[in-house]
Amino acid sequence: MLKVAIIMGADGDLPVVRAAADTLKSFGVPYEMRVISAHRTPDAAADFSRRAREAGFGAIICAAGKAAHLAGAMAANTTLPIIGIPLKASALDGLDALLATVQMPTGIPVATVAIDGAANAALLAVQILSLSEPELARKLAEHRDRIVEDVRAADEKIRAES
Amino acid sequence: MLKVAIIMGADGDLPVVRAAADTLKSFGVPYEMRVISAHRTPDAAADFSRRAREAGFGAIICAAGKAAHLAGAMAANTTLPIIGIPLKASALDGLDALLATVQMPTGIPVATVAIDGAANAALLAVQILSLSEPELARKLAEHRDRIVEDVRAADEKIRAES
Amino acid sequence: MLKVAIIMGADGDLPVVRAAADTLKSFGVPYEMRVISAHRTPDAAADFSRRAREAGFGAIICAAGKAAHLAGAMAANTTLPIIGIPLKASALDGLDALLATVQMPTGIPVATVAIDGAANAALLAVQILSLSEPELARKLAEHRDRIVEDVRAADEKIRAES
Amino acid sequence: MLKVAIIMGADGDLPVVRAAADTLKSFGVPYEMRVISAHRTPDAAADFSRRAREAGFGAIICAAGKAAHLAGAMAANTTLPIIGIPLKASALDGLDALLATVQMPTGIPVATVAIDGAANAALLAVQILSLSEPELARKLAEHRDRIVEDVRAADEKIRAES
Amino acid sequence: MLKVAIIMGADGDLPVVRAAADTLKSFGVPYEMRVISAHRTPDAAADFSRRAREAGFGAIICAAGKAAHLAGAMAANTTLPIIGIPLKASALDGLDALLATVQMPTGIPVATVAIDGAANAALLAVQILSLSEPELARKLAEHRDRIVEDVRAADEKIRAES
Amino acid sequence: MLKVAIIMGADGDLPVVRAAADTLKSFGVPYEMRVISAHRTPDAAADFSRRAREAGFGAIICAAGKAAHLAGAMAANTTLPIIGIPLKASALDGLDALLATVQMPTGIPVATVAIDGAANAALLAVQILSLSEPELARKLAEHRDRIVEDVRAADEKIRAES
Amino acid sequence: MLKVAIIMGADGDLPVVRAAADTLKSFGVPYEMRVISAHRTPDAAADFSRRAREAGFGAIICAAGKAAHLAGAMAANTTLPIIGIPLKASALDGLDALLATVQMPTGIPVATVAIDGAANAALLAVQILSLSEPELARKLAEHRDRIVEDVRAADEKIRAES
Amino acid sequence: MLKVAIIMGADGDLPVVRAAADTLKSFGVPYEMRVISAHRTPDAAADFSRRAREAGFGAIICAAGKAAHLAGAMAANTTLPIIGIPLKASALDGLDALLATVQMPTGIPVATVAIDGAANAALLAVQILSLSEPELARKLAEHRDRIVEDVRAADEKIRAES
Repeated sequence: MLKVAIIMGADGDLPVVRAAADTLKSFGVPYEMRVISAHRTPDAAADFSRRAREAGFGAIICAAGKAAHLAGAMAANTTLPIIGIPLKASALDGLDALLATVQMPTGIPVATVAIDGAANAALLAVQILSLSEPELARKLAEHRDRIVEDVRAADEKIRAES
Repeated sequence: MLKVAIIMGADGDLPVVRAAADTLKSFGVPYEMRVISAHRTPDAAADFSRRAREAGFGAIICAAGKAAHLAGAMAANTTLPIIGIPLKASALDGLDALLATVQMPTGIPVATVAIDGAANAALLAVQILSLSEPELARKLAEHRDRIVEDVRAADEKIRAES
Repeated sequence: MLKVAIIMGADGDLPVVRAAADTLKSFGVPYEMRVISAHRTPDAAADFSRRAREAGFGAIICAAGKAAHLAGAMAANTTLPIIGIPLKASALDGLDALLATVQMPTGIPVATVAIDGAANAALLAVQILSLSEPELARKLAEHRDRIVEDVRAADEKIRAES
Repeated sequence: MLKVAIIMGADGDLPVVRAAADTLKSFGVPYEMRVISAHRTPDAAADFSRRAREAGFGAIICAAGKAAHLAGAMAANTTLPIIGIPLKASALDGLDALLATVQMPTGIPVATVAIDGAANAALLAVQILSLSEPELARKLAEHRDRIVEDVRAADEKIRAES
Repeated sequence: MLKVAIIMGADGDLPVVRAAADTLKSFGVPYEMRVISAHRTPDAAADFSRRAREAGFGAIICAAGKAAHLAGAMAANTTLPIIGIPLKASALDGLDALLATVQMPTGIPVATVAIDGAANAALLAVQILSLSEPELARKLAEHRDRIVEDVRAADEKIRAES
Repeated sequence: MLKVAIIMGADGDLPVVRAAADTLKSFGVPYEMRVISAHRTPDAAADFSRRAREAGFGAIICAAGKAAHLAGAMAANTTLPIIGIPLKASALDGLDALLATVQMPTGIPVATVAIDGAANAALLAVQILSLSEPELARKLAEHRDRIVEDVRAADEKIRAES
Repeated sequence: MLKVAIIMGADGDLPVVRAAADTLKSFGVPYEMRVISAHRTPDAAADFSRRAREAGFGAIICAAGKAAHLAGAMAANTTLPIIGIPLKASALDGLDALLATVQMPTGIPVATVAIDGAANAALLAVQILSLSEPELARKLAEHRDRIVEDVRAADEKIRAES
Repeated sequence: MLKVAIIMGADGDLPVVRAAADTLKSFGVPYEMRVISAHRTPDAAADFSRRAREAGFGAIICAAGKAAHLAGAMAANTTLPIIGIPLKASALDGLDALLATVQMPTGIPVATVAIDGAANAALLAVQILSLSEPELARKLAEHRDRIVEDVRAADEKIRAES
């Protein structure tokens, strides 16, 4: 199975980003977690993304805050799908990271998820891999069923109480 | 090869959305283009997305403006990757559509591209399909080369002039 | 008397949404409280709203945060008045939910109240029902009188102190 | 049948507001159209709203731009449902009017629709009146059917072309 | 000497608004502090502002949050200078109150100060009264001198430390 | 009678600022119009404001765009009331100028009016002068009556047409 | 004398960026103008910035729009001063480019000027070079004198007319 | 070596601004730290900036919040490079200070760094001075190496753990 990379710009982002790893783990999708900074270790960023396809990755999740260039820097050196997580950690509560991640120029897309949306970034990666992994498609369906069940259980509880 | 769906909320969106179709065509990726509204034809939206995986789609591109729910409504009924294009067409120049598309709740991701980023939505779909279609990976690399060449040519021209 | 539905996207929204229930109770308006998610239980949302008018509902209050599609998803399947409460619970403090709730396309309105404005959502429902329930019109007038009295009392207190 | 009032803050707003009148006319709902300004003719605003319920109105639609207080000023003097249309006409493209209309304090709700959403304001008024007018409920269902048909026709056309 | 009115929309605003009273007191300017709501006690607002000039007021300071209409409602019924303080107390941190206070239509100005700028609202009132009260002009000059002195003292301290 | 100064940061601002001059002229209030830039002619700004009170000015209207510091720079050197007009002329449509004008620190207020609100800036100046000029108070009342009459005439016209 | 580089992300940016070249030329500062894209020609960006100091550059001006990463990508590979010009060319009028340029992480600064502020970017470069080029310091003083003179001339003209 | 000035608008800003001083100290760059307010001590601001070049300064760092005019006021009186730090300390979390600092008019640039970006302001000053101080260029390269090393160490740690 193709692997998923989870890259964060600083190790301080781990508390938010961990949900991506946990989600991939729950689906049995192999992943590697890295700290690479578009601005502080640009060579590492370029190297990683240039080799990512042949290294067996199917998607790269990038989490960064403020002038969040990590996802864009990765996208610049690969044609693999890049998934961007804008982080809230800034004076502007992540609006800066959201715009810096999503407003990419024509030719170099970044698949952007919600601010701090680490779990969804991983789910998107699983959805992408599921196209050629029927087992993942099955697990996604089960996962969706559990989500439905959770909402229904909450619904039952509120109806009983109100 | 898996197909890509291009859904727009209204036929008036076609001038922007057409770039997605043109891009897919240039990569030889089969696609279907539809007008389906999350608010006005919710049943069509649910039907389409529920059957999309078994109908041979690998990704669904959704373009909508204002309170742009189309991508979210599609994502609610499938585990295929959903790509959202927020459209500029509103008093708020697409900021509303961007937030309504990208800020999805945990469990139901939407891969959001730039406001009016139709070509990039298609490129993202091609990147996703390329994981199991080596031919598409090759074409993406060529496409990237052409982009590089275009920038270099512009660079040459400006250097000569200045 | 027609009933009012109070729908929230997740049970975690209850602390804010409860003010809607309390307000309806104080007016003697029957209500049902539910947890239904536009994205996670879209079928439940469609079912509920399709049957709401014949089930004796006169208005549906929907509370959701982030890419708040709940009110819009309900509005898509009924011609009953839909009242949307954008919730603050997001990195963007509810601006995303406000725009995702209010900026509906022509044909499918949502009556939007303030961010976290649960009590006002209920008052709006009572106002709507009051058109055919003179008793509610009378209670609304009394309620307004009490509000006036509260402000006057606060005014007296401040004047005395200052 | 109860009447609907359509109030605009200035006669220059008519080109946008007219869609509300046209919509009500198409449903056979009686309406009165007025120019009343919360800031320039506050007495007229207070008089109108105080007497609106006994004058046979069931809802008051208020359209205003910039620091849009018209809907709030009307709501302050009646317990009828007030529907606010924030107008785009300002340097800030209606964001100011949207916030000034929707962010009402507890006790005095305004049912806010999209920026320049005049047709939807009227539809919301019809939905409100439909609770006690089965004929309007029937017309709303037909109207929704036509909307669905329009989208389907556009869908057919695009599918044929693409 | 003309008096200054300090009006707040709710007594919960007192902790912020108190700085206006303290400032006026320090200049020996007579003031009255009131709780009047544009939406909840609109008659009191209209009455107060209509009579304010003949009652000996020279300026009216209005503090309100969210869809902050208080200053505008006062301005609608008097030609005295109205000073608006947008309050931070909302999900949007006062941006809503700022726009609802400052974006007044032509003909009815409101002199708006910073979000939560209660002391400055009072200083502006003193500046206005100072045009016909040389004593106040003198006190303003002294006050400015003290401000200068405070900054200089802080400057000395930092220079000594660094 | 005290004079009013109208200062603009660049002569290109004249088309917007002229409304301030026209308004003052219609009230018979003497004024001087100047081009002074906080950033380009800071000495002229400091000189003007330092001498303004003794030169017979009662208020200074300052119009500037982008990082609009003109009003603040004037306020820094006088205790006269300073009225700030944020100009729309920027990529951000005047939001930058609004915040740069209104968000003044404690001690140095600027009375801010709406973006491009030149007529209201002048009306505010007239209101301020009216405290010691009964004739201006009378003219303001007449002016308000004309405004009321204009709205009423528009109201009559719309009612007749609809 | 050290040279200045002017880099734009696409040749379509030339109409705005040309003001930077014109300004440098008027000061006699040698410059090179290039088209290099952070996302489309990342290698060229890295190469250029890595060699810039030894190639005799003293500052690098980078102009880019949308998710404007060009300045940040340059800053990542050099310790020369990087000057960023956020371009307006986007649905969000340059707010995205401003935040993506200015909100850099600790360690990698970008000196950001106003949206579309190409002339000021060049002036900033000249100011930087002037520290070791007394001739440039003299020319900057003259340039400032001309600016002052221009404002004074405009002031004279307006005073004469008004 | 040229000195760097660090100016803050109020001594309460010291906790944020101190990072600028610490950074300069670590590079052995002489600096002076001052409290000068554009609005409260405008003469001190003008005096300081007018004499700064001949007093041996090479750059002036200005930190201010809200309607942050300090950097602009300094820039108005010198042709030295001015570096602006917008401070977060306001109801609007620094967006006001950012726009008031960066959106300078043509002719008077301010090199703006991120909200609360004090360390980066100092680094930018060091980069500027490094053009004529090879020793500083060397230290900047070392500093960058340490940054790279820090990220690599964090990367190693995360890889080992995950």
